[in-house]
Parts: sequence; C-alpha cells; structure tokens
Amino acid sequence: MMGCKYGSHRVIEPKGVLPQAAYKISNDMSVLYDNEILIDVIALNIDSASFTQLKEEAGGDPEKIKKKILEIVNERGKMQNPVTGSGGMLIGRVEKIGEALVGKRDLKVGDKIATLVSLTLTPLRIDEILDIKMDIERVEIKGKAILFESGIYAKLPEDMEETLALAALDVAGAPAQTAKLVKPGQSVMVLGANGKSGMLCCYEAKKRVGPTGKVIGVVRREEAKKKVEELDICHEVVIADAQKPLEVLDKVLKANGGKEVDIAINCVNTPNTEMSTILPVRDEGIAYFFSMATSFTKAALGAEGVGKDITMIIGNGYTKDHAEITLQELRENEKLRKVFEEMYAK
Amino acid sequence: MMGCKYGSHRVIEPKGVLPQAAYKISNDMSVLYDNEILIDVIALNIDSASFTQLKEEAGGDPEKIKKKILEIVNERGKMQNPVTGSGGMLIGRVEKIGEALVGKRDLKVGDKIATLVSLTLTPLRIDEILDIKMDIERVEIKGKAILFESGIYAKLPEDMEETLALAALDVAGAPAQTAKLVKPGQSVMVLGANGKSGMLCCYEAKKRVGPTGKVIGVVRREEAKKKVEELDICHEVVIADAQKPLEVLDKVLKANGGKEVDIAINCVNTPNTEMSTILPVRDEGIAYFFSMATSFTKAALGAEGVGKDITMIIGNGYTKDHAEITLQELRENEKLRKVFEEMYAK
Ligand SMILES: NC(=O)c1ccc[n+]([C@@H]2O[C@H](COP(=O)([O-])OP(=O)(O)OC[C@H]3O[C@@H](n4cnc5c(N)ncnc54)[C@H](OP(=O)(O)O)[C@@H]3O)[C@@H](O)[C@H]2O)c1
Ligand SMILES: NC(=O)c1ccc[n+]([C@@H]2O[C@H](COP(=O)([O-])OP(=O)(O)OC[C@H]3O[C@@H](n4cnc5c(N)ncnc54)[C@H](OP(=O)(O)O)[C@@H]3O)[C@@H](O)[C@H]2O)c1
Repeated sequence: MMGCKYGSHRVIEPKGVLPQAAYKISNDMSVLYDNEILIDVIALNIDSASFTQLKEEAGGDPEKIKKKILEIVNERGKMQNPVTGSGGMLIGRVEKIGEALVGKRDLKVGDKIATLVSLTLTPLRIDEILDIKMDIERVEIKGKAILFESGIYAKLPEDMEETLALAALDVAGAPAQTAKLVKPGQSVMVLGANGKSGMLCCYEAKKRVGPTGKVIGVVRREEAKKKVEELDICHEVVIADAQKPLEVLDKVLKANGGKEVDIAINCVNTPNTEMSTILPVRDEGIAYFFSMATSFTKAALGAEGVGKDITMIIGNGYTKDHAEITLQELRENEKLRKVFEEMYAK
Repeated sequence: MMGCKYGSHRVIEPKGVLPQAAYKISNDMSVLYDNEILIDVIALNIDSASFTQLKEEAGGDPEKIKKKILEIVNERGKMQNPVTGSGGMLIGRVEKIGEALVGKRDLKVGDKIATLVSLTLTPLRIDEILDIKMDIERVEIKGKAILFESGIYAKLPEDMEETLALAALDVAGAPAQTAKLVKPGQSVMVLGANGKSGMLCCYEAKKRVGPTGKVIGVVRREEAKKKVEELDICHEVVIADAQKPLEVLDKVLKANGGKEVDIAINCVNTPNTEMSTILPVRDEGIAYFFSMATSFTKAALGAEGVGKDITMIIGNGYTKDHAEITLQELRENEKLRKVFEEMYAK
C-alpha cells in the first residue's frame, strides 16, 4: 500500500493538509506503508527555541519537561511544541524499509541515521523517556518514528561521535546556505556568533569572504566574545544585545569602518531581533533569518518602516548537500570541532 | 531638537526598541522634532489581514470596528492590530515640515501625500472617525500623524483618483518586487490572483516572462477566474483553495505541463498557505511571500520537511521606486485600471 510522498495519508486533523501543518497525525506503527521507512528511535534533539520554552514553562524541572513532551506526543502524534511551533530532529536505526523504497535508498536495516526533516512532521511514538540531557537539549527515548518518501536523512558518519554529528546536523541549513550566499570581499554580520549555528556560519562566512572581506560576530557576553575570538572564526567580535537594534547598528557600523554590511545572518534563539538584523544591512544587501523566533510581519513591516531595500530570506532548513557541507566544517577546523565536542558531545 | 532618524525618540515602552516593535509610542503632536513631518490625516487604509480580523471580531458591525480602532490607537499611539501585528497606510496633507528637513524633501505644506511606511510605526492621534468604508477597508478620520526622517511617502499623482492611487500604493512592494525577480521565459504562479496585489503581480509577471514564459493565476472562485481571465493578466487561471497544498500542486502542475514553476508569489490574505506556495516550486526556484498571514516557522520547517531546496523571500513592503512602478502599471493597462477603479475608487 502506497502512502502520499509527502505523508498526507497519516494526517488525522485537519484533513487535506500536510503533516507539518496538521494538528494531529497518526503514529500508529502497526501498519507500514510501502513508501515509508520505520525507525527505531534512540534520541530526539529538540529545537533550541522549543527547548527553551519547555524549560521555562517547567521552571527548569526535567520531570516536568518529560511529562510535557509525552503529553504533546500523545496528543499530536509528533513532537511539535504548540507554543513555538518548532520541532527538532532525531536519530535512530532503520528498522524496516517499505517495499517501494528498497534499493532506492542508500540504506539497509540496522543503519544508524539522523532524520533531517523536522520532528514537526514526523510520526513519533514514545514508549519511554530514558533521560533528558538538559545542557544539550537531547531527549533519549524508547520509541518508533516514520520517515516519508520525501523525507531527507543522513547516515551518521564513522569519524565522529554521534552526539557531535547530530548537534551539527540539526542546524546544517545555516552554514550550507551561508556558503551559497556569501561572496569574496563581502562584509558579513552574524548575530548569535557564539551559538551552534552562529559558530558554523561565522567559520563558513570567513572562508567565503576571503582576505578582502570581513566577518563581524555579535555576541551578548564578554565570555562569549573570548570564546569566538579564540576560535578565530570572525575578523571582529562585538558585544551587543540583539534585542536592541540601535545598539547593534552602532557597534557593527563601528566594526565595519562606518559602512553597512552586505549580508546579515540571524542565528539567535530569542524573539524581537528582526530590526537588529535589518538595520545594519546596506541597500540591496541580504538579511538571512535562520532563527525560528523570527516574526514574518515584524521583518516585512520593519524593513518597510525604515525604508530598507534589502532581500530578506527565510532560513530554509534544507539546501542541497547541507549535511555534507556542515560535517565537513568540523573535519576541517580542529578548534571548532573541539568546542563542539566540549559543548555537545557529552 | 533632533529626534532619532528611525523615530526611537517617540518610543514609550519597551524602551530601546524601534517604533514598530514598540507596544506604545508617543502620539503627542504638541512638540514637533526638527526631523519630523506633521501630517493632517484624511484617511487610513487598513491592511487587509488586519481589517479582516477587526471585521470578524466585530461581527461585521462598523460601530464596533470604530470603537476597536479608537481603543487601539488610544492605547498604543499607533494603529497596529494587536492580533495580526499589521497596520496599513494613510493619506493626508503636509501640515508642517521640521526645520532640519526643509529643502531636503520634495514637499511643501499643503501637499497631499500617502505615507508608504506602515501604520505600525507611525505616531497617530485620532480626533474623530468620520466614516468606515467597509468594502475598501478605508477609515476616514480627523487626526494627525508623524513621518520620521527615514519614513518614505509618495505625493499623490494628479492623473488618478486618490482612493485609486492609495489602494495601489498600499501593496506597491509586491508588483515592484515581482518586476525585479521574474525573468524572461520563466513560469510563475500567483496565489490570490484576483486580489489587489495579486492582479498587479500577475500583470507585471506576464510582462516580464515575455512570450516564452507562463503566468498561472490561482483563485478560489469561478467568478474570480472569469474576472482574471477577462483582464488578460495570466496565461492560465486555475481554481484551487490556497489552504489545500495538494490541490494547488495538482492544478498548477497540470497547468504548467507537468513541470514545477520557477517562481511562486503568495498574495492571499489567509493563514496556512505556506505549503501551497512551496510545493509547486522547482528545485532552486523562488517562493516570494507577500501575504502578511505567512508564518515564518511554517515556511522554514515546511520546505525542509518536503526536502525543497528553494529560496524563500519575506515580502519587503519597500523596494526602490515601488510607488512609481505600481502607479505606472495602472497607467499602462486600461482594463486593470478600470477594475481597480470599480473596486477601490468608491
Ligand atoms: N531555519 C531552520 O531551519 C532552523 C533549523 C534549526 C534551528 N533553527 C533556529 O536557529 C536558532 C539558533 O539555533 P542554535 O542551535 O544555533 O541556538 P543556540 O546554540 O542556542 O544559539 C543561540 C545564540 O543566540 C544568542 N543570543 C540569544 N539572545 C541574544 C541576544 N539578545 N543578543 C545576542 N545574542 C543572543 C545566544 O547567546 P548566549 O550564549 O549568550 O545565550 C546563543 O549564542 C534557533 O532559533 C533555532 O530554532 C532554525
Ligand atoms: N509584505 C508587505 O509589505 C505587505 C504590504 C501590504 C499588504 N500585504 C499583505 O498582502 C496580502 C494581500 O493583500 P491584498 O491587498 O492583495 O489582499 P486582497 O485584495 O484582499 O486579496 C486577497 C486575495 O487572496 C485570496 N484568497 C484568500 N484566501 C484564499 C484561499 N484559501 N485560496 C485562494 N485564494 C484565497 C482572495 O480571494 P477571494 O477574492 O476569493 O476572497 C483574494 O483574491 C495580505 O495578507 C496583506 O496583509 C503585505
């Protein structure tokens, strides 16, 4: 039995929409469609915005977070945070490949993979939550998930710890998109330069702008500034609060010799940072919003309000070869890999 | 006394943000800063998403809408719908030009202008609501407004009725952006082809794709299809519900000879149309979201979820010469102008 390539056959309500837009999807794993892949789940890597929200709501109590996650998944058939709308990703082992896909995927039963589609559209059943690693936003579980025919994934690399690869793959869209956007000689600002996606974007941007360009990282803490400076992934690091656009504008202009930047990349995980991304960009420049806390209307009306003729891009989680581009960064840069290992490979 | 170029000197709360992000700004018109322009307001053109929401909340009763608008403006110092986050624009006469701007603007006291920055950041005081024209989402008032130094505006043209120009200017960003994005020979889908911005985008796209390209308009009603066909602004018009991505995909593919389109333009005014915009686009194509009902996370996660490597653009309300490009369309195309006159010049 063939399901819809995009998974609409598992949508319970509302009918006629795709799984990501659905409030509730079927996580009944007793029937596997011929173009589905069944995954024995090992761990969920919760999206940063979602985890922050869950943690706040639970007052930091892991047991309450567990309860809330089970509640969401039982109710919706997927791990989509109802407040932030965001999900995350998962790793697991291929348990069964639907007949129609056998031979059409570079996969065999038992392979360890990371799904690169969001948890917001992935049918998921949790049998038990084994552990929550608060510091790396990772939830270890017993459970099953489904990958649809259009679903993308990455086989976990042999030369890297699993948690390390997973952490990088979670934000793979950002550095891969940076690689495609940034041109030699340009000036680039990265908001949230010390975060996971921020560090990867800075490194990639610095490589791309070459000797005549400039990458300016924006962080909000002295300690973070030191960390990014030691990594040597920016030409300059400034301290400013991304929720204060006038402060960011001032600091970034100073760091860029009074000139506006060609490209701004937003990698923070807090709301109300649209204008900090827009203001420092030059006429006809690009603002790339990777942060899921971005408000569409605030960006659209914000640029208009200050008469900025710039192209504003919604950070697509997927771009071709994003997994390879991102893992390659960690292979190339030993210092970056070490920081990632310390932060995420616990 | 000079204010901030971006108007931050009028922000009341929270401090340190720009007027658009502010909950409350000062609409005290007794002091005019040297780089501000005071406007004697004639009418507000409420953003379509906002007006739809106000109308629904008020059960269609104009008196209740009036009350709500006054409530919002008294509370916030600007007409920003708290539910949709959106605003609109206004027309009025220049009442006073701050000293620092005299001679630096092509304006004199008494000129009739439309502000092209959103009402979401425009200090506004309403003394009286004279009338609400429900069908054209226009609110006639007595009141005052402020244009900041960075604020953009258009002098109202002599060769066009005011309400007509205003209606077109309200959505000027979309056709102007279409003019810049669409290339000869491309295939373009416009969601909401019979709406105000939709018609202008179709016309502009058809001009741009030239004889070898294809513009496919998507509408949801038979009547709307006829209207767009009579206007001759699309190569093909299909009927589909933009909230049903699989239906849109199917119809658009059929209209495009089985091929995905190069560019999708979303001009609808209802939520949950992100996937209908994304699914029909080819690999490395462009999805341009003009609709203010667009959800950032639904677009970002949606594209990833179906493994679509496309560039998604947030519809910037401003792009260079957008007012001229848009008014020129109405001058060029008599049929279009007539429809606009019938619909908006009441
Ligand atoms: N578009 C997509 O497809 C996609 C996919 C995955 C993730 N994301 C989103 O991307 C964003 C970043 O993810 P991530 O994993 O890189 O998060 P992360 O590692 O938690 O990094 C977030 C960074 O933002 C910084 N930050 C937060 N508020 C700030 C402020 N007001 N001023 C300056 N810096 C501030 C943090 O600084 P501190 O260290 O000082 O806290 C941190 O460096 C999240 O919103 C996530 O949801 C998007
Ligand atoms: N990004 C910016 O800077 C900016 C500036 C101004 C406006 N906007 C936004 O642009 C959008 C369009 O504005 P507008 O003035 O052009 O609005 P409009 O004239 O009201 O047109 C909206 C169109 O969408 C159609 N539509 C709504 N739901 C649909 C569905 N489910 N399937 C198919 N068609 C559907 C409507 O069809 P019917 O005729 O059948 O109802 C109508 O043709 C609004 O969301 C507005 O807020 C954005």
